[in-house]
Order: sequence, then C-alpha cells, then structure tokens
Amino acid sequence: MAGTTLDDYTDRYAARVHGMTASEIRALFAVANRPEVVSLAGGMPFTAALDHSHLAELVSAVLTHHGASALQYGAGRGELRLRELICQVMALEAVTASPEDIIVTVGSQQALSLLAQVFLDPGDIVLAEGPSYVGALGVFAAAQAEVMHVPMDDDGIDPAALAARLDQLRKQGRRAKFLYLVPNFHNPAGVTLSEHRRDLVVELAEQHDVLIVEDNPYGLLGFETAPGRTLHSRSSSRVIYLGSFSKTFAPGMRVGWVLAPNAVREKLVLVSEAQILCPAMLNQRVVTAYLEHYPWQKQLKDFRTLYAARRDAMLSALTCLMPTETKWNSPRGGFFVWLTLPPGLDSKVMLPRALAHNVAYVPGVGFYADGQGCSQLRLSYCFPDSDRIVEGVNRFAAALKQEQAIQGLFTEHPPPRKTRPSNAVSSIVDNRRRRYAPGPEIT
Amino acid sequence: MAGTTLDDYTDRYAARVHGMTASEIRALFAVANRPEVVSLAGGMPFTAALDHSHLAELVSAVLTHHGASALQYGAGRGELRLRELICQVMALEAVTASPEDIIVTVGSQQALSLLAQVFLDPGDIVLAEGPSYVGALGVFAAAQAEVMHVPMDDDGIDPAALAARLDQLRKQGRRAKFLYLVPNFHNPAGVTLSEHRRDLVVELAEQHDVLIVEDNPYGLLGFETAPGRTLHSRSSSRVIYLGSFSKTFAPGMRVGWVLAPNAVREKLVLVSEAQILCPAMLNQRVVTAYLEHYPWQKQLKDFRTLYAARRDAMLSALTCLMPTETKWNSPRGGFFVWLTLPPGLDSKVMLPRALAHNVAYVPGVGFYADGQGCSQLRLSYCFPDSDRIVEGVNRFAAALKQEQAIQGLFTEHPPPRKTRPSNAVSSIVDNRRRRYAPGPEIT
Repeated sequence: MAGTTLDDYTDRYAARVHGMTASEIRALFAVANRPEVVSLAGGMPFTAALDHSHLAELVSAVLTHHGASALQYGAGRGELRLRELICQVMALEAVTASPEDIIVTVGSQQALSLLAQVFLDPGDIVLAEGPSYVGALGVFAAAQAEVMHVPMDDDGIDPAALAARLDQLRKQGRRAKFLYLVPNFHNPAGVTLSEHRRDLVVELAEQHDVLIVEDNPYGLLGFETAPGRTLHSRSSSRVIYLGSFSKTFAPGMRVGWVLAPNAVREKLVLVSEAQILCPAMLNQRVVTAYLEHYPWQKQLKDFRTLYAARRDAMLSALTCLMPTETKWNSPRGGFFVWLTLPPGLDSKVMLPRALAHNVAYVPGVGFYADGQGCSQLRLSYCFPDSDRIVEGVNRFAAALKQEQAIQGLFTEHPPPRKTRPSNAVSSIVDNRRRRYAPGPEIT
Repeated sequence: MAGTTLDDYTDRYAARVHGMTASEIRALFAVANRPEVVSLAGGMPFTAALDHSHLAELVSAVLTHHGASALQYGAGRGELRLRELICQVMALEAVTASPEDIIVTVGSQQALSLLAQVFLDPGDIVLAEGPSYVGALGVFAAAQAEVMHVPMDDDGIDPAALAARLDQLRKQGRRAKFLYLVPNFHNPAGVTLSEHRRDLVVELAEQHDVLIVEDNPYGLLGFETAPGRTLHSRSSSRVIYLGSFSKTFAPGMRVGWVLAPNAVREKLVLVSEAQILCPAMLNQRVVTAYLEHYPWQKQLKDFRTLYAARRDAMLSALTCLMPTETKWNSPRGGFFVWLTLPPGLDSKVMLPRALAHNVAYVPGVGFYADGQGCSQLRLSYCFPDSDRIVEGVNRFAAALKQEQAIQGLFTEHPPPRKTRPSNAVSSIVDNRRRRYAPGPEIT
C-alpha cells in the first residue's frame, strides 16, 4: 500500500470530494515548522502559559476519583455539568442560555461541520465576511455550498454591502441559508463589529429572514475593552452561537460548543452522534475541573496581558520596518493582524520568498472562497514571543524589500500585477481553487 | 429559546436531515439508565476494571513534562508516535502497516463518518451484514445511501448470498460503493467470520471490484482463540481497516483509527480536518502513554477473562430461564448475544414491558436498515456483573412469560404476528423508519 501513487479509487468517490487535493500552501507549511523559521502563520494559543502542574493535579483527581465514568461513553450532547459551566462562561459576554440549549462539540470546527450537515445542500448560499475563517470556508466548500463574501472595514462587516447583497438575492428569488460572522477580534481580519452595526446586521437578518451563525472564540480576549454585546443576546431565535475553549484554555482539549434554538439543536445532536457518538468524557471532565478549580478568570487576564504585549511588539515592528504603502490594522484583541502588501506584490507568490528568509505567514487567498486576497495576508502574534515577532517582521520586511528591488530592475514604476517574475505565474493561476480543509496549522 | 416547541427552521434544512427525528427507542433508554434497571442494552466496556491510579500517574506525567504540546493543536492525521504504536497493536492481529497509512480518528465512529463523506453520494449502495452495527447504519442513512443487507449465520456473512447480491447488482449495472463488515465478534450478532469464508469474501470483492470496510473493534477480545486473519492482511489495497481503543482500553478517550490505501487516506485526512481540525492531542498522548507504560497486554487478558465469565453467566441464565423456542448464539468473544424470541413476540413491543420488569435490551430493528429484526434483540454482557446479568435475564424471562400468558388468554395456539395486543400496533408500524444516529447509549 505504501508506495501506491496512482489513485485506483477515482471511479467511486462521492461528488463532494472530486478534485479535492491538499493545497500547495500546506506543503510550504511543512517548511514553516522548522525551528529556524519564525512562524507568524499559526493561530495557536500560547499553551505554555498555563500552569501545567495544576492541570496535572486536576486531571489526576478526575481519573482517581471518577475514572470509570471519565473513561466511558457519555451523552451525545455532552455532560450537563459542563453545559451549566459553559452558561456561566457565556454570561461573561451577556449571553443568556440554559444548559438544555447547548451541545458540546469537538472544538468549534465540529460545530461548523454539524451546521453544514444540518443546513447546507449543494448549491446553497452562505454569506460570510470577506475575508473569513479558513476552517469555515473549508466546511462550506465540503458541503458544496456557494460562499458570497461581504466586505469589511475597521468596524467589521459593511451593513450597506450586506443589505445590497440581501436585496440582490431577494430579487433573484434566492435566500442565503445563513450569514456566518466572527464579530469579535476577527480571524483573519483582526477587526471587531461595532455596536451600532450589530443592531443593523441583526435587523437586516430579521428583514430578510436569514439565520446568523455567530462564531465567537476570541470574545474574552479583548485587550482594552470588552467587545460589544453578542448578536445572540439581540436575537436568540435567529442566531446560532458558537463558543470554544481552544483560544481561552487549550485547543488540545478539542472542546467547543454550539448554542442553538431547540429544533435546530435536536438535529445537531443527532448529526453529532452520527459523526462521533459523543464528545470525549475525559476532556469534558478536565474542562469541568478547569472551570471549577483552576483560577481561569485570572488565567484569561494573564492571556490578555501576554497577547496585548505581543500585539504591541508586532505593531511597533511593522511601523518601523515595513516598506512604504504597506497597510495593516490595529486589533484590539484576539490573535491576528491583517496586512495589505504594497502594490505589485502578491502574498502567495511572496510566501516561498519569505520562507527563504525564515519567516512564515498565511497568504490572503486562503481566507476567501472566490480568489480575492492576493495582496493581503495574515500575521499572528499569539504564539512567538515579542523578540521573535520583531525578528519575524524584520525578516519579512527584508524579503519584501528584496522582491521590490528585483522588480525595480525591470521597471521604474511597477504597475500592480504586471511585474511579477515569470516563474510565479503557475502559483497564481489557481488562486480561485477553494481549499477544502484549513489544516490545523493555520487555525 | 427554551420553550420553543415549533420548528421555525423547517424551510431551510438540508435534504439529508428532513424527517430526521430521535427514535422512540431513545426515550425508552432514558428509563434504562435508572439504577433499578438491569441494562443489558449498552455496549459499554467495563472501564472500572482499569487501574485508575496508574492512569492518573500517566496523564499527570504527560501534562507535567509535555503540557504545552499536549494542550496544543496537532496534525490532522494524528501524531506519528501514536500511529507507530497503533501499528504494533495491529501486528497482534497480523495486520502489516506503516504509520504513514494511518489516520487517528475520534473513535471508529468518526472513521465511518469520514468514509461516508469520501465515498457516498445520495442513492449509493452499501452492502452490510444483516444485522449490522447501528452506528454504521446511522452514518450510511445520514449520507442518504441505500443499505442492502446480506444474511449471516453462525460463521458470519453468507458468501452464497453475498455472491447472489453482487451478481444481481452487476446485472442491474450497479455497483456497491463498499461492503461493510465486522468480521470478529460481531456487533450485534456475536458471530465471527470463519477463516474459509474470509477467503471467499475477499475473492468475491475482487471479482466484483468492490471495496471492503473491515471494522474490527473487538478482535483482541477473543475468549478461547484469536479470530481468523484480518481481511486487510488478505488484500491491503481493497480493504479499509478500522480500529479502536474504545473496547480494548476506554471509549472516554474517543481514539480510533483508519488504515487506508494512500489515495483514500489523503482524502480522509482532508475531510477529517474539515470536521474537527485534528484529534485531541491530550487523548493521543494519554493513549501513547498507555501503550508505552501501562501493562496493556495484561489488561487485555484481564478484560477477556472478565467478559468470558460474564458471557458464561448470561448463557447459563438464558439456558435455564428462557421460554422454549427462544434461540440465541454463543459468542466466542466480544460483548454481545443475539437472541430470537419465540414466535408471536416482537422485540420492540416487548421493550416497554421488559422495562416495566426493570430490564433493558436493544430491539433488533435498530440493527437493520429495512425493518427486519422484529423478533430479534441484542443482549450485552460487557457492563453488568454476573449476578446482575443473571438477575436481568431472570426479569426478561418473566416479562416474556407474562406476555405469552396474556397472549394465551386470547388464543390457544397463537400463530406468529397475529396475537399482538392492539395497543402495540402503533409501535410496530414505523419499524422501517431508519434511525439516524445510534445514540451513545447503545454502541
């Protein structure tokens, strides 16, 4: 079997996986994991900041005192005690919910996958911010849905553009199955939906009878102020809310949740049972112990302080080092800076050049379903320490300047999109190809 | 939201979930979990037999020494070290594989779900033993596939019936996407595919160019002798092999795996990443530590001894207590006895009556996609101790005899299927309704 290179099974795959291949970006990420590379690519929280000894004690107690049940099957929707505690966590963001309304999932990714199973037929429309979370785009692509992006600015999704899109669909006699949003400290755009726009977005969704999927993994990671009230708190029957412990505690637990209206929730449970039977009891018990016995609110505060310092380091370095005409935003929380390259540079073409300078990032095209994002890219400040961040930005700036210098050899005033070196063309042509799965590397 | 009873979302669900509802059997299982009920229903391994203190030490060491990575995201296909150890586990059953060929999954259930995503379009045909694993049937139903059952006897699936079915499909110009089999200590039928038939089944699959999905969670739980060589060892390019730690170690870990030919495996990884990003690192590290530092082969031996004694208790009790004309098989491993009721009794109609006698089992209809199984049911001996098993069989026998006595009031010689009490009819009519998800209660 090892060594088989031809695919003998092409005549029997399901339609949804035809042409599905790992993106070429993945191959580059194998390089990004080398120790000499500063990776500003991954959205990995800094789990080294957790008190591992304390966690070891908690897990040890779970197994010593409740081993038989922690090692057993559990309910498909997750344990009641954990769902009660999740309600307390959500209350910090003014989400009112009953444990009955919650399903525990294998991270928010599974929640997205369940929603796709429950709502999406091939050809269905999903509205999403542009750019949008790569893992969500992967799920929607796997469901053979059509993603229509709505542009964002520094205040989040543009309500006028959303209204225009909804009107256009209405005129066509079509309706989006849902509007997928990351309102707080957006991945990858780094921006937060303003309070006023939250009202407008919910109002538009009501007018057009469209569901909203509110994905909120970063809401508790605001550096200066808390983000606005959740969309769910404005319209609990119209909003399906996704939460996760992956960014605020540990992704290695794979524990997230979905909060959904009664009828939807029942279907989500049945689909989840078909996918995984039940979420791992061990992990649920560990998260429960974490929320009951670990100073997790203090830990959250520590995470915020840590990430704020790293954001500051990144923003200062960008200001000092980036070539002119580079643009980026200033996130007030979360993990990511969204950057636009100077005219004439393509973020995917630049990636191997950046890797040659021992720095990695995620090109913008991965965050769009329609080939946008060529001049944009995501930088993460969550994982490397501040010194490494500065070094990474420095290397990236050097790569950009070198590329600009090469381009300058051929033209005095390089117009955008005409001066790429010829060997880059093959990397560009498939920008429109959807990535199927994000790969855990670039959550 | 809590309190919403009507479904406002019916106009936007995907086709695959239309009409999907929790089976009425689930409601009965809420009763089955009461402490006064002896449950012979669940397929839960006896996790109390594990050394919880030892496991606590192992997990504690994982977190203390490798906390940051155990709490982090990992690779979509699972950790290399665990995949190496899985190869060693499979070698016990003469499966030869390279770690490269393996994907770690959230139990075998996720592996089944991934296979459905990769192979099944609506209307596709899957061949399966009749009866078959309820969790697999749920996945195939969710994929809108058509399951065609092939009958079994004490030596497993009937090769003549399989050949006839394959010929019939060929004449119709159709081909099954795969043949799903549990060759060892079958769930729910308790039987094991004979060595000779393994050759015949693989030969038929080759002749008709059909893939085989070999699901083997129980292979290491043989009481007297090991089962035959795996199908995978006979044809590694035609067989996709599923393994799990849920029965041999602990289902609360949710760690299983799939071993697949190269091209298929790549697609499975991409689909898995879209579903869950990656399997939980914590769980992978704990299973790795279990395989490296816990006397797991001794534990397997202890499990076998334990379950063999419980099987003996169940078989003796059945022999002593069951009404005449009841039939059952004698499993040589695994968790389950498959029982056929005396003529005139329906296993689904009997369930509430059995529960009134404080004993639970799983009615046979759940193990068929086509409404067969009315007179059959599954009894599990894996979880309750021998005394409880005997008590449970005793209660079940009493319930059966009471029902027979009631039927005897109305007719001297009750012909099969004509003497059911009239209030039972509503429970029978929807036998053909497919259950969507098994529910973790009855794995």
